[in-house]
Amino acid sequence: MAKSKLWGGRFEANTSELMEQFNASLPFDINLMEYDIKGSLAHVKMLGKQNILSEAEVEKITEGLNRVKNNLEAELKAGNFDFNEAEDIHSLVEARLTAEIGEIGGKLHTGRSRNDQVAVDLRLYLRDQTEQIMDLTINFMQIILDLAEEHIKTVMPGYTHLQRAQALTFGHHLLAYYFKLKRDYERFQDALKRINVSPLGAGALAGSSFNLDRDFTAKELGFDRACENSMDGVSDRDFVLEFLAVASNLMLHLSRLSEEIILWNSKEFSFIELADQYTTGSSIMPQKKNPDLAELVRGKTGRVIGSLNQLMYTIKGLPLAYNKDLQEDKEGLFDSVKTVKIILELYPEMLKTMTVKEKAMKKAAATGFLNATELADYLAANEIPFRQAHQIVGEAVLFASKKEKELDQLQQQDWDEILGEYLDIDAEELKEKLSVEAAVNSHSTKGGPAFEESKRVINKEKEFLTDK
Amino acid sequence: MAKSKLWGGRFEANTSELMEQFNASLPFDINLMEYDIKGSLAHVKMLGKQNILSEAEVEKITEGLNRVKNNLEAELKAGNFDFNEAEDIHSLVEARLTAEIGEIGGKLHTGRSRNDQVAVDLRLYLRDQTEQIMDLTINFMQIILDLAEEHIKTVMPGYTHLQRAQALTFGHHLLAYYFKLKRDYERFQDALKRINVSPLGAGALAGSSFNLDRDFTAKELGFDRACENSMDGVSDRDFVLEFLAVASNLMLHLSRLSEEIILWNSKEFSFIELADQYTTGSSIMPQKKNPDLAELVRGKTGRVIGSLNQLMYTIKGLPLAYNKDLQEDKEGLFDSVKTVKIILELYPEMLKTMTVKEKAMKKAAATGFLNATELADYLAANEIPFRQAHQIVGEAVLFASKKEKELDQLQQQDWDEILGEYLDIDAEELKEKLSVEAAVNSHSTKGGPAFEESKRVINKEKEFLTDK
Amino acid sequence: MAKSKLWGGRFEANTSELMEQFNASLPFDINLMEYDIKGSLAHVKMLGKQNILSEAEVEKITEGLNRVKNNLEAELKAGNFDFNEAEDIHSLVEARLTAEIGEIGGKLHTGRSRNDQVAVDLRLYLRDQTEQIMDLTINFMQIILDLAEEHIKTVMPGYTHLQRAQALTFGHHLLAYYFKLKRDYERFQDALKRINVSPLGAGALAGSSFNLDRDFTAKELGFDRACENSMDGVSDRDFVLEFLAVASNLMLHLSRLSEEIILWNSKEFSFIELADQYTTGSSIMPQKKNPDLAELVRGKTGRVIGSLNQLMYTIKGLPLAYNKDLQEDKEGLFDSVKTVKIILELYPEMLKTMTVKEKAMKKAAATGFLNATELADYLAANEIPFRQAHQIVGEAVLFASKKEKELDQLQQQDWDEILGEYLDIDAEELKEKLSVEAAVNSHSTKGGPAFEESKRVINKEKEFLTDK
Amino acid sequence: MAKSKLWGGRFEANTSELMEQFNASLPFDINLMEYDIKGSLAHVKMLGKQNILSEAEVEKITEGLNRVKNNLEAELKAGNFDFNEAEDIHSLVEARLTAEIGEIGGKLHTGRSRNDQVAVDLRLYLRDQTEQIMDLTINFMQIILDLAEEHIKTVMPGYTHLQRAQALTFGHHLLAYYFKLKRDYERFQDALKRINVSPLGAGALAGSSFNLDRDFTAKELGFDRACENSMDGVSDRDFVLEFLAVASNLMLHLSRLSEEIILWNSKEFSFIELADQYTTGSSIMPQKKNPDLAELVRGKTGRVIGSLNQLMYTIKGLPLAYNKDLQEDKEGLFDSVKTVKIILELYPEMLKTMTVKEKAMKKAAATGFLNATELADYLAANEIPFRQAHQIVGEAVLFASKKEKELDQLQQQDWDEILGEYLDIDAEELKEKLSVEAAVNSHSTKGGPAFEESKRVINKEKEFLTDK
Repeated sequence: MAKSKLWGGRFEANTSELMEQFNASLPFDINLMEYDIKGSLAHVKMLGKQNILSEAEVEKITEGLNRVKNNLEAELKAGNFDFNEAEDIHSLVEARLTAEIGEIGGKLHTGRSRNDQVAVDLRLYLRDQTEQIMDLTINFMQIILDLAEEHIKTVMPGYTHLQRAQALTFGHHLLAYYFKLKRDYERFQDALKRINVSPLGAGALAGSSFNLDRDFTAKELGFDRACENSMDGVSDRDFVLEFLAVASNLMLHLSRLSEEIILWNSKEFSFIELADQYTTGSSIMPQKKNPDLAELVRGKTGRVIGSLNQLMYTIKGLPLAYNKDLQEDKEGLFDSVKTVKIILELYPEMLKTMTVKEKAMKKAAATGFLNATELADYLAANEIPFRQAHQIVGEAVLFASKKEKELDQLQQQDWDEILGEYLDIDAEELKEKLSVEAAVNSHSTKGGPAFEESKRVINKEKEFLTDK
Repeated sequence: MAKSKLWGGRFEANTSELMEQFNASLPFDINLMEYDIKGSLAHVKMLGKQNILSEAEVEKITEGLNRVKNNLEAELKAGNFDFNEAEDIHSLVEARLTAEIGEIGGKLHTGRSRNDQVAVDLRLYLRDQTEQIMDLTINFMQIILDLAEEHIKTVMPGYTHLQRAQALTFGHHLLAYYFKLKRDYERFQDALKRINVSPLGAGALAGSSFNLDRDFTAKELGFDRACENSMDGVSDRDFVLEFLAVASNLMLHLSRLSEEIILWNSKEFSFIELADQYTTGSSIMPQKKNPDLAELVRGKTGRVIGSLNQLMYTIKGLPLAYNKDLQEDKEGLFDSVKTVKIILELYPEMLKTMTVKEKAMKKAAATGFLNATELADYLAANEIPFRQAHQIVGEAVLFASKKEKELDQLQQQDWDEILGEYLDIDAEELKEKLSVEAAVNSHSTKGGPAFEESKRVINKEKEFLTDK
Repeated sequence: MAKSKLWGGRFEANTSELMEQFNASLPFDINLMEYDIKGSLAHVKMLGKQNILSEAEVEKITEGLNRVKNNLEAELKAGNFDFNEAEDIHSLVEARLTAEIGEIGGKLHTGRSRNDQVAVDLRLYLRDQTEQIMDLTINFMQIILDLAEEHIKTVMPGYTHLQRAQALTFGHHLLAYYFKLKRDYERFQDALKRINVSPLGAGALAGSSFNLDRDFTAKELGFDRACENSMDGVSDRDFVLEFLAVASNLMLHLSRLSEEIILWNSKEFSFIELADQYTTGSSIMPQKKNPDLAELVRGKTGRVIGSLNQLMYTIKGLPLAYNKDLQEDKEGLFDSVKTVKIILELYPEMLKTMTVKEKAMKKAAATGFLNATELADYLAANEIPFRQAHQIVGEAVLFASKKEKELDQLQQQDWDEILGEYLDIDAEELKEKLSVEAAVNSHSTKGGPAFEESKRVINKEKEFLTDK
Repeated sequence: MAKSKLWGGRFEANTSELMEQFNASLPFDINLMEYDIKGSLAHVKMLGKQNILSEAEVEKITEGLNRVKNNLEAELKAGNFDFNEAEDIHSLVEARLTAEIGEIGGKLHTGRSRNDQVAVDLRLYLRDQTEQIMDLTINFMQIILDLAEEHIKTVMPGYTHLQRAQALTFGHHLLAYYFKLKRDYERFQDALKRINVSPLGAGALAGSSFNLDRDFTAKELGFDRACENSMDGVSDRDFVLEFLAVASNLMLHLSRLSEEIILWNSKEFSFIELADQYTTGSSIMPQKKNPDLAELVRGKTGRVIGSLNQLMYTIKGLPLAYNKDLQEDKEGLFDSVKTVKIILELYPEMLKTMTVKEKAMKKAAATGFLNATELADYLAANEIPFRQAHQIVGEAVLFASKKEKELDQLQQQDWDEILGEYLDIDAEELKEKLSVEAAVNSHSTKGGPAFEESKRVINKEKEFLTDK
């Protein structure tokens, strides 16, 4: 039979304490403190303007709130704040306020409910964090752009299926990530439009019978506008989901870049060498440089997407309006914000400090017939139908590989042998065309790796960043 | 020992046929047929303009492509298309074209690769589908708005924690979903900006040495612009992820509405009765109306989110540029598009045809002290601090519930007994204030359930929809 | 242009400190402390047995490890442990050991690597936690079984599609969850077989050239056996995934029970009333009982499944053997273990303390023609083909509902009118058969709700629990 | 304003047809046909045994069912089956049966409901498929074991963090996957215990008033036992979730192997060359071998995990017993079964046909100081504390790398210079010890890469497979 004593001691609390602990959110929603007080300050100001509270009351509460904020900040900094002091951030602030200014503190809650209060806090928090993340993304883009410019002529192999395919430049390769991040930036920008809406005054779910001026508090708090339906205001967390979806997408982009960093940093590729501070070595194998940061970023991609899923699971099938389930909207978000920010701080530093091994890159680009497409295009440009040109090139490659040569190492007589029946060819001219640099620069279509085109793109994006 | 013969027969194909089958995408990417041909038509037109192909060649290929399209459409309609005819839609079209016009068909592929081609197809498809879904969303919003207007005075209980909390109206409740859908609409709109970008000309990964005019094809195909980096153009599927994230969010909203429909349609709530065509009955329990459509929509929420996850898993950690893994970007998307569209067609019809049981709603709203907050607000408005007012109301409710009355059924002497020490009260006036209708209408803050406010909101949104 | 100063201050650390912080795992892997030391004690004992270390060395290290453990436990309890003392739990213990006993402490690591060490720690931890969770599950099952026995005759409506379908008992309903939990218990048991395998001695990835006795340490640590491949030993986390999948399934079961608790506790159903400690009230609406615990459990289902996804994302596509990404295997697991344990503690208490409103349940079961199937079965048993019987019953229900009666309230003449052409019926006998209790008890097939059958099942399961 | 005509034509069906289409499951649950009929045959046999149906009726229905099955099989094979013939497989079979044998067909449904029927079908299907998948897994393991034996001495570098770490063998590396798959096999075996339970007779949710012999049908259908609670029987899909979780884990293992295959097959690693049928080439770059199968498997990992999530989302928060949402339990499962089976067929063939480039592997293993740990162990075995030994080795590696030599290429005087102060060393003896083969073979701990140990493991596992 089940022996309940056995596990009675497993939690160091009796049932009701356990329940309190289970219910409590202060250990994490303390993150909302400054936003909670900010919201309260706007609310009380509005209550005064609307003559719901007297000027004296407003002044007293305002002063009290500021004192509470200062005290809490000091305690948190000193590390002597007790996370069990209250159930959640809202009760904490209210209790502290009442302790500071007496019963009158209770008037702060006039015309407000925890349901709209927590929604306001979360939106103020997320607006602030999103803006910080956008700044960090711009910084990241800037550093990629600088690197791309530096390596605008650094030839490397381009891969499809992890097989060498065509030559391009390291700068061009980096620009691909620049544009991926730029889209993430734009998505955060779009998300902000939906984050920055005020639910204050939505009450528990049905607004209030007090004559609240919701437009005033919205403006006071820097929101674009007040929401148009009170039930929507307290029931929805889609602004959190949108943020997490955009953050997940950003992490997916970085997971791909990290995979490449790890490959390039391997002995087999040897395209880059990461700086010491972003790797761990082995005391006995000094040449070993474990790309820890890149690996952690790749790994933490799952963490952010996990939080997105967590919240989608939580929200699925919930009836309106507020349900306690929604308390689960915070921890995953806070963790994702922290994760994304630290990564956006560190990653550009890793890129800036890595050594790019240009010779190794170029050597790899010159090996493996990456200019085969060039030859085909050349033939096609000389009136040979594309599909047939492909076939001829296949034979040329076979010919060369039997001789253990690359295409641009073939001689006039080789070409005559291969192509004689189709075309007269000047080996010197062709050799020129098939050189790695020529191949890269001939790819001058918009968005291509050619030097001039990359330069155009970089200059254009420099302008974009200047405005940020 | 493992007896390989045992399962040799499980697939009715030998290994290489199995591999072909595993590799093949025609059974699903046939969905891209019209978009594939559209893209090819623009490409060939540009090849002509750039003098890469002759006018005659362009004409011949164009004609051929149109014939191929007509034939395929006819076969698909007649149901006699063989899905094993080719490996994928691109090979199919090219093979058919060559069959129609001979070797010259091979020239269509000049300066193009399957990698940019499939990206173009997918973007054309998704732009078209997103626009259709946006239209359907607007239609859905319109129907909710009409219903909300019809029920602008239909009183019902508002719930938090599935507990009756405050009275509001069915119209007000529906408006919450109107605004949730409106945000989904805006998200699709934002997503379109990133979907509608042309990768055509990005080639296999590094653009082309042909003098392609990428801006021309972009314009020809109705894209806003051509992408600025060829590797980005062929490697990214974040426009698909963004669509799936927005669609997932829409489904989550509908999962919540469906949960409510199912609750309201239950014997216990009895707030609505769904029309026969959206329920299944039981031949022996004719009063039973299983809300099949709502249940399926709630269930299919997982399906769309499942597809979002599927693609995020697939993309995580992939190096640039194209990898075969990306072939997995289509089936989940196609299924999600189909699912969302059929739901957006059916759901509004279900809402339009349901019977709203106004009496039952009102009766529920009048039971359970939903006007307790009204009383508290009334006291607070009469100078009693909010927290103390709450306490008094608690006692009043206890008093009433002992007498098995609701608050608005209490008499003058009851009020004197309860509130005498705090406040003189006119029972008649209070009764008026505490009536369900009065309570609802007193909640006239912006976005609240009061009649006039709801009217304002509805009129404003009518204007919004008129422009769509 | 990007202004890097702007966010320079956002993290209160310079880059290399940030990197350290990003890399560090001590704040969470401190959870592994006792297991880490346990593993070390076994390792050093084996090194002695194999004459790799001298007896004196073994004794000194053993003593030192015990002192380290005692000190750490004391500091953690006192709350004065510095979580920045070391990078991870392994370095912490080794540094402390060396501080205690000098250079000789370094010998502990002979023939061991962090890669096998962390795998051992995690397995010891998870074995311990899984066993605790299994005990808690058994306790939960016991309490459900007790409740089921108490309510073996408490009639309630059974639902399909949230529509009343057939009468059954609350005891029978609860037994459904008993068996769901029992399967979860069995799955944990199966998972244990794969958790309880020793990777100690697998080294960094390729075992060791020291003459380690891996079977000895496996036995010493209570493992069933040592793993048979060193690369597998350090690269795999499928034992964590399996645990998380089983825990997710358990949470899904509890999400369903929670949904029902929330419904039953609503005004509309009113089948149960939860005890105060598992609800929050409203100071102004004392009849309101927000079912917080049930809502939180439903919400936290997403949390555990989120962690499962997080790890699956992390592991997808990782090459062998160890990668730093795997550091992400811990936080989600620790959080899930904590979440599941506290829920398994609290949930049974909530069930034990709730009030079951038997009258309301029975009344609901007697309303809505839940005995219609009984009537059909009765007719079918009297030689009327089942499909035809269904149709007749449909007519009977229509007849009764027009008269605003239930089937067991119909009189002899009613039955004659309805059934006359098919069957002679004794109204009294039929009334008996159609009574709620009779209907329930006639469902005496194996696993059915009939009293005797429920009793059999309960007794059998009591025996099962006695052995645990 | 919304123009509903616009999208009126988007679906080629009017609303009620759309609803039918949305509701219909025949297009996919036709997969259950043989299992549905199998279940019916057992049910009718039992009805006869229990004298609920006469012998003649049983015979007639049995014959009819067999005819229905044969006809359906024929139509499906011929490709002329109309998937719109019925709403689902159950109605299809019943309609066909009645068409064959008349009204009496209706008696088949006596004491049964669609709710238990579909649960039976799904369990019979999944048992069958799981057994097939287990056979395929055993076959896969056999082929890996054969390969491992073949390459028991093929030296290659072992990696951590994708950095060369220690030498081991290709055989040893493959064995890691053998054991991963073996655990998956065991998990399928454990899952079978919970799949193979009969819900037949659970009825709609509450069993039946007919005297059904549930143990008889369970036995007849090869189930281990009948479930003990009817509500559990119809409401649960955790056996599907468990299968999908195990399948997801298997796919994660294969995603890792695929990542390695792709790496090894790259120009940079060049450890293997895949056979033509599992790659696609490029007509112009014949040396390019895109590892399509491995890429698709890595990509399809998301597909199976997506289906797991889909069903978890669907089930979360559903009240008992049956809800229409559960119709969504099939398509993801069917797709996952098909995906896993075809992969398990193809993957071993790809492994069997690949060329292992032993020289390249060995060369890589001999480069990069992979024997540094050997040297450290050697020093530690000579009484130098492990941590100090590490430091010395670091210096030795530095010394060697400056001379552009590997450790086993150092001469006596080199060693004297490096190690003189610590130890007298015989360069020849050490060279021997530091050779790749010696290093590998010295790792003879249990589960290590040493030849004799690998041999022991392979022989043991051969025995395991012989019994399967």
